[in-house]
Amino acid sequence: MSSIHETTLQVKADSFSMAALPGDIRNKALQAIIDNLQSHRAAIFAENAEDLKRGEEAGLPQPIMKRLKFDEAKLADVCAGMEGLQSLPDPLFRTLLSRQLDEGLILKQVTCPIGVIGVIFESRPDALVQIAALCLKSGNCAILKGGSEAAHTNRILFDLIHEAGVSAGIPSGFLTLIENRADIDELLKCDDAIDLLIPRGSNAFVQYIMNNSKIPVMGHADGVCHIYVDKDADLDLALPVVLDAKTQYVAACNTVETLLVHQAVAPTFLPKLSAACCDAHVKLVGCPRSMEYIQGEPCTDADYRTEYLDYILTVRIVDDLDEAIAHINRYGSHHTDAILTESEEAAQRFMLLVDSAGVYQNCSTRFADGFRYGFGAEVGISTGKLHARGPVGLDGLVTYKYKLFGHGQIVGDYAEGRSSFHFKDL
Amino acid sequence: MSSIHETTLQVKADSFSMAALPGDIRNKALQAIIDNLQSHRAAIFAENAEDLKRGEEAGLPQPIMKRLKFDEAKLADVCAGMEGLQSLPDPLFRTLLSRQLDEGLILKQVTCPIGVIGVIFESRPDALVQIAALCLKSGNCAILKGGSEAAHTNRILFDLIHEAGVSAGIPSGFLTLIENRADIDELLKCDDAIDLLIPRGSNAFVQYIMNNSKIPVMGHADGVCHIYVDKDADLDLALPVVLDAKTQYVAACNTVETLLVHQAVAPTFLPKLSAACCDAHVKLVGCPRSMEYIQGEPCTDADYRTEYLDYILTVRIVDDLDEAIAHINRYGSHHTDAILTESEEAAQRFMLLVDSAGVYQNCSTRFADGFRYGFGAEVGISTGKLHARGPVGLDGLVTYKYKLFGHGQIVGDYAEGRSSFHFKDL
Repeated sequence: MSSIHETTLQVKADSFSMAALPGDIRNKALQAIIDNLQSHRAAIFAENAEDLKRGEEAGLPQPIMKRLKFDEAKLADVCAGMEGLQSLPDPLFRTLLSRQLDEGLILKQVTCPIGVIGVIFESRPDALVQIAALCLKSGNCAILKGGSEAAHTNRILFDLIHEAGVSAGIPSGFLTLIENRADIDELLKCDDAIDLLIPRGSNAFVQYIMNNSKIPVMGHADGVCHIYVDKDADLDLALPVVLDAKTQYVAACNTVETLLVHQAVAPTFLPKLSAACCDAHVKLVGCPRSMEYIQGEPCTDADYRTEYLDYILTVRIVDDLDEAIAHINRYGSHHTDAILTESEEAAQRFMLLVDSAGVYQNCSTRFADGFRYGFGAEVGISTGKLHARGPVGLDGLVTYKYKLFGHGQIVGDYAEGRSSFHFKDL
Repeated sequence: MSSIHETTLQVKADSFSMAALPGDIRNKALQAIIDNLQSHRAAIFAENAEDLKRGEEAGLPQPIMKRLKFDEAKLADVCAGMEGLQSLPDPLFRTLLSRQLDEGLILKQVTCPIGVIGVIFESRPDALVQIAALCLKSGNCAILKGGSEAAHTNRILFDLIHEAGVSAGIPSGFLTLIENRADIDELLKCDDAIDLLIPRGSNAFVQYIMNNSKIPVMGHADGVCHIYVDKDADLDLALPVVLDAKTQYVAACNTVETLLVHQAVAPTFLPKLSAACCDAHVKLVGCPRSMEYIQGEPCTDADYRTEYLDYILTVRIVDDLDEAIAHINRYGSHHTDAILTESEEAAQRFMLLVDSAGVYQNCSTRFADGFRYGFGAEVGISTGKLHARGPVGLDGLVTYKYKLFGHGQIVGDYAEGRSSFHFKDL
């Protein structure tokens, strides 16, 4: 048995008592973590400086260096996030269903933690704090593997969080840090101990995880988001929304990649869009019909499936709403897609028929985010349809069990007509 | 492209309009199906007689022949089930969350179908009707592969259901029947068209499906259920409950396989149990300590993990409640486990710490069933922890999407402090 496997089995053993911890102990632990991080801020920043120094020596690109930085502002953010989590209602022990099956035979469906969750995340050290806090609040044990660029910062954050949690009465297995990339492959084999994997990272990485583990995976494989400018769109509203969705943060999964424009408004809207994109350094690639109205290059079928994560936008003119819907369901990644229209009927049809986690009317796709939805934080965004869909907060980290309370009832009596069910929701 | 793949892509295309159908059309279709089945009862029974004849010629075992039979009683059952489904509330278009994120920016979380569901089921033709009805009521398209023993009955049931559904205005792709076993492997490759697979059958078969498809799978891999007789158990209640859980239907997944007995009551309870099991032709295999009190053979570690599906029961004496809980979490399959006790404290601890879909006090494990839970019917029982757990009815066949209604809001305004979120649940 590998040492990783042994570790995960110990975590599994602790996960059962974790599931029984009352909410006030989990909240007290969150407070202890806030206090411990704040009183060791200098040490955290010193470790972060070490990571930044190594990153600079290694010539890491600016966006990664920016995400790597853990300063006063980031510390304040994660502590505010944990304060927010403390005040959210306990996601555990909620009764979802309470039903009398027969006299003296009561069924209850009650929320409980999933158990042991493995999260593999990118270079942002603040993600470590957020994920640890979400898992703790929801009664789950978390096994974390962060980006190696952030190794020093992750290590001190982990030590401080673990120390504070255990001192508040949380089992030691509530949080585990995995530091070697090679250990990920060991982790993928531990399907007897880990209940859920949440990989955050590139599409290729998520696919690799899915193809190499029997453990259920919750993650998003791709973010090919669309905006459809309808014939009844307010075009003055449309331009800033498209620009925000494309440029506010190009590397995010909820950034728009393809713009679909109704043929009736294309001649008016596209030239304005083209000029605005030129100003914003966004390169356009367009369908043959659109080339009459935009400055750009012709697009291929492959462009329709591409998550650029860059200052590039595909443009296609469609005949009508249904062609836009068909395009999105065919080429999209079921992440987040928006319609810009003043027609309630068109919006309703779009939102019913587009098969995506987020369907928006008259706003930017960039709103697809756990914090912006009021979830406090998120462990990721799911483009799968099972369990949790879209930004995943506390609700996505719990499951339920059915509790049945009887007085000696046996099924034979019901099968042979001596008793019968009288369902009554309580 | 294989013909199966083409078929599934057509089904996928129909699944989008299926998701938009109002509940009254789906209910009317259920009524049309009831009517069509009832007015063609003679033809159905004739086809079933053909299957039964072939089954007899092939020497199928009696339990399979019994499940294969589709007579007046089975027809009445499935029609009553569909009437029950008609009267259940629509699982679609339910608003789970309605939240103002800011003035004029409203988030709604609304239920919708999963999409296309592939169900591979055993030789019971009534399962075909139940699964088709559950998928229809929940707005999903279903692709069904039934047992080949029931080919004639399945074909006529499918034809009648499909004809009635289409005549009631349901898209043709709502139901598809796959008839060749070899086509299952083609089906497993259609991850661009099928959203969920539900295999019903042996553990080995479910594992095969999980290992050979990228499509998410919901199924139960094993049913190793336990009953723990606590020191505070009412022993008069315990004996009939254990016998019911073992013998009422030995081939079911919710049948008890291992009995754990507190050492304090073992000397009183086990001799009575041993005698009763002898009368009921249940063979006992026991731990060394238990051999003093029972007639049976010594058990091995492997017995603790075995789903017998037969008149065999493993018996183990435990020192206390926590040893029982640890045994169940270690050897069980997280299906359904019961404690027999008059102590509320012991029951509460057991139900919190046992990590199973069903945790019962003072009743038979055989109650783990969608019909007995009041779900109308079930597509299966899930021992996974994600999405749906335990018996899966309509709720397990829906997902949700987030709808965001705005007036041109962009994220840049919130990121740069010109706007801020004001979360308010509506």
